[in-house]
Amino acid sequence: MKRITIYDVAKEADVSLATVSRVINGSEVVREDTRIKVQEAIEKLGYKPNAIAQGLALSKTTTIGLIVPEASYFYTGQIINGLIDVAKIYKYNIMLHTTTEGITEMNDIIENIIKSRVDGVVIFNDKLNKEELNQLTRYQVPIVVIGNRMSDETVGSVYVDYAKLAFDYACDCIKQEKKQIALIEDRKNPAMIKQLREGLTRAFEENGMTFENYIEIPKEYRSSYLFLKEYLTKENRPEVVITYRDSQAMAVMNTAKEAGISIPEEMELVCILDSKYNAMARPQISGFKIPDYDLGAVAMRLLTKMLHEENEVSDKEIELSYIFTPRKSTK
Amino acid sequence: MKRITIYDVAKEADVSLATVSRVINGSEVVREDTRIKVQEAIEKLGYKPNAIAQGLALSKTTTIGLIVPEASYFYTGQIINGLIDVAKIYKYNIMLHTTTEGITEMNDIIENIIKSRVDGVVIFNDKLNKEELNQLTRYQVPIVVIGNRMSDETVGSVYVDYAKLAFDYACDCIKQEKKQIALIEDRKNPAMIKQLREGLTRAFEENGMTFENYIEIPKEYRSSYLFLKEYLTKENRPEVVITYRDSQAMAVMNTAKEAGISIPEEMELVCILDSKYNAMARPQISGFKIPDYDLGAVAMRLLTKMLHEENEVSDKEIELSYIFTPRKSTK
Repeated sequence: MKRITIYDVAKEADVSLATVSRVINGSEVVREDTRIKVQEAIEKLGYKPNAIAQGLALSKTTTIGLIVPEASYFYTGQIINGLIDVAKIYKYNIMLHTTTEGITEMNDIIENIIKSRVDGVVIFNDKLNKEELNQLTRYQVPIVVIGNRMSDETVGSVYVDYAKLAFDYACDCIKQEKKQIALIEDRKNPAMIKQLREGLTRAFEENGMTFENYIEIPKEYRSSYLFLKEYLTKENRPEVVITYRDSQAMAVMNTAKEAGISIPEEMELVCILDSKYNAMARPQISGFKIPDYDLGAVAMRLLTKMLHEENEVSDKEIELSYIFTPRKSTK
Repeated sequence: MKRITIYDVAKEADVSLATVSRVINGSEVVREDTRIKVQEAIEKLGYKPNAIAQGLALSKTTTIGLIVPEASYFYTGQIINGLIDVAKIYKYNIMLHTTTEGITEMNDIIENIIKSRVDGVVIFNDKLNKEELNQLTRYQVPIVVIGNRMSDETVGSVYVDYAKLAFDYACDCIKQEKKQIALIEDRKNPAMIKQLREGLTRAFEENGMTFENYIEIPKEYRSSYLFLKEYLTKENRPEVVITYRDSQAMAVMNTAKEAGISIPEEMELVCILDSKYNAMARPQISGFKIPDYDLGAVAMRLLTKMLHEENEVSDKEIELSYIFTPRKSTK
């Protein structure tokens, strides 16, 4: 397919190249009816302005919109650090937006930042699915999603495969005859838990068993801590407990101590999203080092490529790996 | 003093009002020599464009530059949340910048974000002093500083008085005959530690004593944990240990446990910057709830006032309070 250029737009709208350029760059000196004519031509032809050329034309800094969930800045912080370090190299500015809820608000935010003429968008939101993302691609600016594997013409992604992580870990446990593995629900991170659960389910299936120990925190419990206090004192307690966040791992550890269950001798404990606090707990909690800083840095690098080379970036789905950090809560 | 208006600038530069407006709003259609003439007039007269009017003129969204230290996003995160919530209400965009080092880099960053035509700046950096800030005021955009008490025509600040916090707490301890109070150095937060130390010093002086237990971590120790292991086993250990961050408090707690010192019976422990992890430690660590979210929200609110009312905001130094949260590490 022939690529649509600015010349095609000018011809279609019957205006000069300079006028098209002014419309693209948001100049105030274009008459409203001319602007509409050019925008109609852009839409009809599906023209996608080269964001870098756009930036150069205006001799302005390239601006990237960054959308992160409001909730957990500790993990998000490292992602932002990685992203900003790369953005500095390429002299990009970062416009920060936070989101507390689902896609409805997300669409509003995106609409808003596109209007403020950003050149690209990075979204860190693991709740986003493919269908929802399709809504975003109509904005015709490059988007990189952190946390979900997905891509199309204008969308790239950088992610960690949590299902594979859980699958591999469970297979290891099963090999060592540890088959009572429990995964604790995390109300704040349902998408992550879903992936982990998928991996565990598959691991059990491939070993001719069924994964049954997904531990939901009943609604009537205000915190997992209060529920775990009861759960862990049951007769039939798991051999290995997996939590997503450090605070849940600490809740398991504290409740186990109170119930007189010794970790790791009587029960092992693993935290998926490792943090410095896991190393400060006693016993120290084993966890997976997720490359948070790299997620941000690689996402930003991918976006710069997409901005420079338009749609010719071959690999727009980048999977990053994780490292298991064994400490004292596992045998 | 008569306020300088856009009319004065136009008269001085011998150009039309529209030309001055175009220069202020960064329009590309102004000739370079005209632009220079207008800018010289602006500087000569000390004219400060009304940022809101500026925004309206361009019918663009108001943009705020936010500069935060790269290091600790956990605490910073709440500040950002508060700031963005208020920014959303006033439909302001946030341009995020991080800084790893001192004022030199800070000046570069500020110069850069002023160039990208932000309407105001919020700086969260407790290392900034008055002299350094004077350098910033020449940019003539409103600035709100979080963490330091300072203000002038274009600068406001929102802060917590850590010296007072330490003074009050130490006075309480001394009243209860606990006079062996130690403050642990925090290499990452020298400005905070300085304030805490000042407060402790004053409290001891006012009670006819000298504060002597400022515990520096010798350079040869890679972490405070390694040093504390030795320090706490000394004969002459303190009755009350104060740390700035939760991770240091946990290091004290872990080393105390290893040394067989029971908290709080044999030694009390207080963390200034409280966090959810303090509540997860066993025994739970007492701390001060610093209003992080409010620091961000109030700073943003103050900036909107400064943008709307120019220099007529009467109270540009806003002190926020803290709450002591006693848990199990203090008696």
